[in-house]
Amino acid sequence: MRAAVLHAPGDVRIEERDRPSPGPREVLVEVTAVGVCGSDIHYYEHGRIGSAIVKSPMVLGHESAGHVVELGEGTTKHAVGDRVALEPGVPCGRCRECRAGRYNLCVDVVFFATPPIDGAFADFVTIHEDFAFALPNSLSDEEGALMEPLSVGIWACRKASVSAGDRVLVTGAGPIGLLAQQCAIAFGATEVTVSDVNQQRLEFALRTGATRTLTPQDGFDLEADVLIECSGHPDALTSGIKALRPAGTAVLVGMGPGEEGTVPLSAIQRQEIWVTGTFRYANTYPTAIALAASGRVDLKAIITGHYGLEEAEAALKIGREDPASVKAMVIP
Amino acid sequence: MRAAVLHAPGDVRIEERDRPSPGPREVLVEVTAVGVCGSDIHYYEHGRIGSAIVKSPMVLGHESAGHVVELGEGTTKHAVGDRVALEPGVPCGRCRECRAGRYNLCVDVVFFATPPIDGAFADFVTIHEDFAFALPNSLSDEEGALMEPLSVGIWACRKASVSAGDRVLVTGAGPIGLLAQQCAIAFGATEVTVSDVNQQRLEFALRTGATRTLTPQDGFDLEADVLIECSGHPDALTSGIKALRPAGTAVLVGMGPGEEGTVPLSAIQRQEIWVTGTFRYANTYPTAIALAASGRVDLKAIITGHYGLEEAEAALKIGREDPASVKAMVIP
Amino acid sequence: MRAAVLHAPGDVRIEERDRPSPGPREVLVEVTAVGVCGSDIHYYEHGRIGSAIVKSPMVLGHESAGHVVELGEGTTKHAVGDRVALEPGVPCGRCRECRAGRYNLCVDVVFFATPPIDGAFADFVTIHEDFAFALPNSLSDEEGALMEPLSVGIWACRKASVSAGDRVLVTGAGPIGLLAQQCAIAFGATEVTVSDVNQQRLEFALRTGATRTLTPQDGFDLEADVLIECSGHPDALTSGIKALRPAGTAVLVGMGPGEEGTVPLSAIQRQEIWVTGTFRYANTYPTAIALAASGRVDLKAIITGHYGLEEAEAALKIGREDPASVKAMVIP
Amino acid sequence: MRAAVLHAPGDVRIEERDRPSPGPREVLVEVTAVGVCGSDIHYYEHGRIGSAIVKSPMVLGHESAGHVVELGEGTTKHAVGDRVALEPGVPCGRCRECRAGRYNLCVDVVFFATPPIDGAFADFVTIHEDFAFALPNSLSDEEGALMEPLSVGIWACRKASVSAGDRVLVTGAGPIGLLAQQCAIAFGATEVTVSDVNQQRLEFALRTGATRTLTPQDGFDLEADVLIECSGHPDALTSGIKALRPAGTAVLVGMGPGEEGTVPLSAIQRQEIWVTGTFRYANTYPTAIALAASGRVDLKAIITGHYGLEEAEAALKIGREDPASVKAMVIP
Repeated sequence: MRAAVLHAPGDVRIEERDRPSPGPREVLVEVTAVGVCGSDIHYYEHGRIGSAIVKSPMVLGHESAGHVVELGEGTTKHAVGDRVALEPGVPCGRCRECRAGRYNLCVDVVFFATPPIDGAFADFVTIHEDFAFALPNSLSDEEGALMEPLSVGIWACRKASVSAGDRVLVTGAGPIGLLAQQCAIAFGATEVTVSDVNQQRLEFALRTGATRTLTPQDGFDLEADVLIECSGHPDALTSGIKALRPAGTAVLVGMGPGEEGTVPLSAIQRQEIWVTGTFRYANTYPTAIALAASGRVDLKAIITGHYGLEEAEAALKIGREDPASVKAMVIP
Repeated sequence: MRAAVLHAPGDVRIEERDRPSPGPREVLVEVTAVGVCGSDIHYYEHGRIGSAIVKSPMVLGHESAGHVVELGEGTTKHAVGDRVALEPGVPCGRCRECRAGRYNLCVDVVFFATPPIDGAFADFVTIHEDFAFALPNSLSDEEGALMEPLSVGIWACRKASVSAGDRVLVTGAGPIGLLAQQCAIAFGATEVTVSDVNQQRLEFALRTGATRTLTPQDGFDLEADVLIECSGHPDALTSGIKALRPAGTAVLVGMGPGEEGTVPLSAIQRQEIWVTGTFRYANTYPTAIALAASGRVDLKAIITGHYGLEEAEAALKIGREDPASVKAMVIP
Repeated sequence: MRAAVLHAPGDVRIEERDRPSPGPREVLVEVTAVGVCGSDIHYYEHGRIGSAIVKSPMVLGHESAGHVVELGEGTTKHAVGDRVALEPGVPCGRCRECRAGRYNLCVDVVFFATPPIDGAFADFVTIHEDFAFALPNSLSDEEGALMEPLSVGIWACRKASVSAGDRVLVTGAGPIGLLAQQCAIAFGATEVTVSDVNQQRLEFALRTGATRTLTPQDGFDLEADVLIECSGHPDALTSGIKALRPAGTAVLVGMGPGEEGTVPLSAIQRQEIWVTGTFRYANTYPTAIALAASGRVDLKAIITGHYGLEEAEAALKIGREDPASVKAMVIP
Repeated sequence: MRAAVLHAPGDVRIEERDRPSPGPREVLVEVTAVGVCGSDIHYYEHGRIGSAIVKSPMVLGHESAGHVVELGEGTTKHAVGDRVALEPGVPCGRCRECRAGRYNLCVDVVFFATPPIDGAFADFVTIHEDFAFALPNSLSDEEGALMEPLSVGIWACRKASVSAGDRVLVTGAGPIGLLAQQCAIAFGATEVTVSDVNQQRLEFALRTGATRTLTPQDGFDLEADVLIECSGHPDALTSGIKALRPAGTAVLVGMGPGEEGTVPLSAIQRQEIWVTGTFRYANTYPTAIALAASGRVDLKAIITGHYGLEEAEAALKIGREDPASVKAMVIP
């Protein structure tokens, strides 16, 4: 089978590899759609994300869907031919975090395209059957692949307990911000303000349901119940927290430039603001599929380009090259 | 001014009364729309609801909206002419329940049309300014009046923590069940099943967003995250609880026939189901207005009749007489 | 090795069996202490608990501790010689309930002494290493075995969110009620009232920290934040719920006589009471060990008898024969 | 009556003032004990705390207890002679924050010794009867006065959901840190580590139940469920957050040096840490009294000095002058 393998920063090669065999309770999936994520781009450009370093050749891609083509021993949940979205991280299921339902914090997780685990820019992948989720006919494979970034948005909204009638501020209108915005609406938010420096992104936001858009220079003259920070920009975090109502919640999704950062501590104390961050997600796939299948979120709206597996490198580059690009899809 | 006064079961008289004067921080409101609630009908038919007994003539009606026509001393939140929805219960603000944010459980609450407090089937009422909520232009006075039953649905969804992607079962498709159903959708539920014995009501449910309807004889062959019981029927409660997923939540909104009732205790234990009930609501009006103004709920859809103040008695009777009636409005 | 095997109601035989071998990531544990639980007694007397039926010979006992004597392949968390308390149910780790942190509701759990799985009335058992918890030196093996019923009390207190200054009513002063009472105190409750028909049990309660005891005929003239119902008696449930403050919580731990039962629905609604039940426990062992090791709970206080493995049947009978018996221990 | 009045930084004068009269539902209380708080000291030294500026002479002191000596009109909850602890902030009871149970965030609160409201360094004060809490005989007036700082500790533990078996790190062992430590234990924490630069304070901590003490140079080689930051020191905040387990909670109680501050954002994200701050407290007095009356916290242990009302200035100075001073009491 073919795979798009990262050898070094800027060096992705299409290679032939052995088709993997599904282990016990695993399924072999023929990959039909993979989204390109910011983390893929970061690995492509830098060969690392923080302490996660690509030391040996690795297949990128973790937003994937496909068709079940072979069943491992003891598999009971899928049949050959099933269309499935793949949750790319399989946790240990036994440790304290897993047992508490926080399996996204499992340190023994095996996660696609996180060194040294290969990802889904390939013709085939194997995965534990419980991490392959059946797609209804109403959803395409491409939409199935986007259950992954949609999960990030769902997780942010869950952390913030976004609920009906809430006023949500989303800072940063990249793919994650745009999906978080859609999620906030799906969770019942009735005012969703999106800020970004990129006007094209803000128009995207308006087309997909944002009730208001802002640029940073506009200032945040609003009172929000929830901030979902997706830009990683320190000023957005500070201004966003200051825009929260008393006892509001700020969820940090975007990664900032350093290990530490400045926040308005005095406002956090005086207003009893809650601040937290998200790391991946847990228990989101059924919700993601339900939201997409019921039309509460529009995943097709954020897809801006399609690439063959051979063009994976072009897909990894387009985000930097074209400011109008939101989500590039690789179609093996 | 005129008021529709309940003197005894089945005895409502239109009377002239003195127009009330707003006290400190109160506003005088000219009533322009009042919904008829099941409790109004119950008082009309029986002169009591449990231990709440109409001992002296009382004005019915607690789902109301109108226009501010006079300001009491110290009022700062409204101007003459403002269109407002009225939250009909003003709690003490000081007791343990009020201080904990559970002001709906305040025993010193002064609540419209609960003996001996007069309600809103009248030309004018007074209310503390903080319990009059400004209506946006996009909402009619009638919709404003229906913020009250909408609040009941919102409160049920909050108690059950209905969230995006949830599967909700609503048993009983009267006005409250139909609004609870709309609320569940507004809170993000993607499967909302409604059950009732009345086919007309079920058609109403489908028209306003239910994804599936059932009659009790169909049986509840589903797995729900949440049950919102609005029928008061013991079988609906038992079957509904059994239809819940492990750790699901049942919220009792409909009043049953007696003080006690039977529930499937063994299922509650084995599945760790949560069961609770609702008594009025707290902190719902801003959410109700946001949901209605943003089009997330359709209040006009449940209005089935209009009556002048002089016809209040007819409005109180129509629910029994016409099975197609859902919500009758009195327009003083 | 020896094992005490239940063949039929009232028929427990001491038999020689093969010593089990630890599988991958399992440890072999030499059992040094096993508590007798009400469910063991129920299986002994009736051969079943509800739909769980002992169809073939089964070893009873699920409250156990012992010493690690052999390590299965890939084990990393224990060394031979470690003293460990055993959490008797190993869930699948993959299903929806497990992933949500509700692993006690996993339907694929393998649980000691629940048909057809053998329990710990034996010289040796094997268990997944993550379900064996190291005991500090300050705790005896017998105390280690009682982490299991202590977990039931902890789980009840967690479900009820018992916190500092709470007033807790525990109905039923059997082993579980007495431990729930101690847990409530350990969670910070400052008023813990215990009711039972058995005066000896109530004296036990007072000696182990209850602030007040009641018999049912005293009536429950108190206002509690939390009810922990451990008697399974319908009247205790009804009276206990009526004794709750507005928005209080009732947790059903004791199993009642039937599938259904009567509760004061009207009080649940008017007062917005929360009612739930417990099924086993999840994520309690570290807490249990911390509470016992720090002296916050006194497990020795409830141990009233010791029996050799050969005397397992006597240990199963003593609860019925001696009203002063609380917790019998089997010491293989 | 006499009052200790702050005229300017460093200028406290004992003056004769008119004894206040209780308004409707107020009680007149003869003050018998007042604790000196860090905020009193800050006003004394600087004449302001942030934007709260002492522009006209103001009586300090907000940790107070006393005896009811006169009842205002309509008072029903107290009798002359009752011993009461005073919750020093009376919120409006009507605004959004009050209605949601977050009355500590009410902007219209009337709070003792917060400009321009006079405090309790006086012979008499008036307060709404619902904010005077009856003291049981087992508690002295001085302990009654300390319900206020104890409330700060309770509130921090509630925000962090401290529960049985938790491991809590308290940074800063001033009066608030020492009470937070005691509260953590009362909430069930079994490991409570306290850090400070002052060895005398750490010895205090050990005597009142801390299980371990640290100085900042020791480093925080521990894993905590909860951080309660009471020092206001940026390094304590950063090191403390890094010492939290995944999904742990940090509560900021101590005020830092500036409006903004640095936190380890990357750890907050990767570990999904929750960070919040406290501003005063809500609904804590009944809990505080229950904890003190049941002996779960020892308030006498932190009292290190007594001063007459005429010596109020000395009481305000002792904290700076004597490193062994923890809590000075003014006894009018």
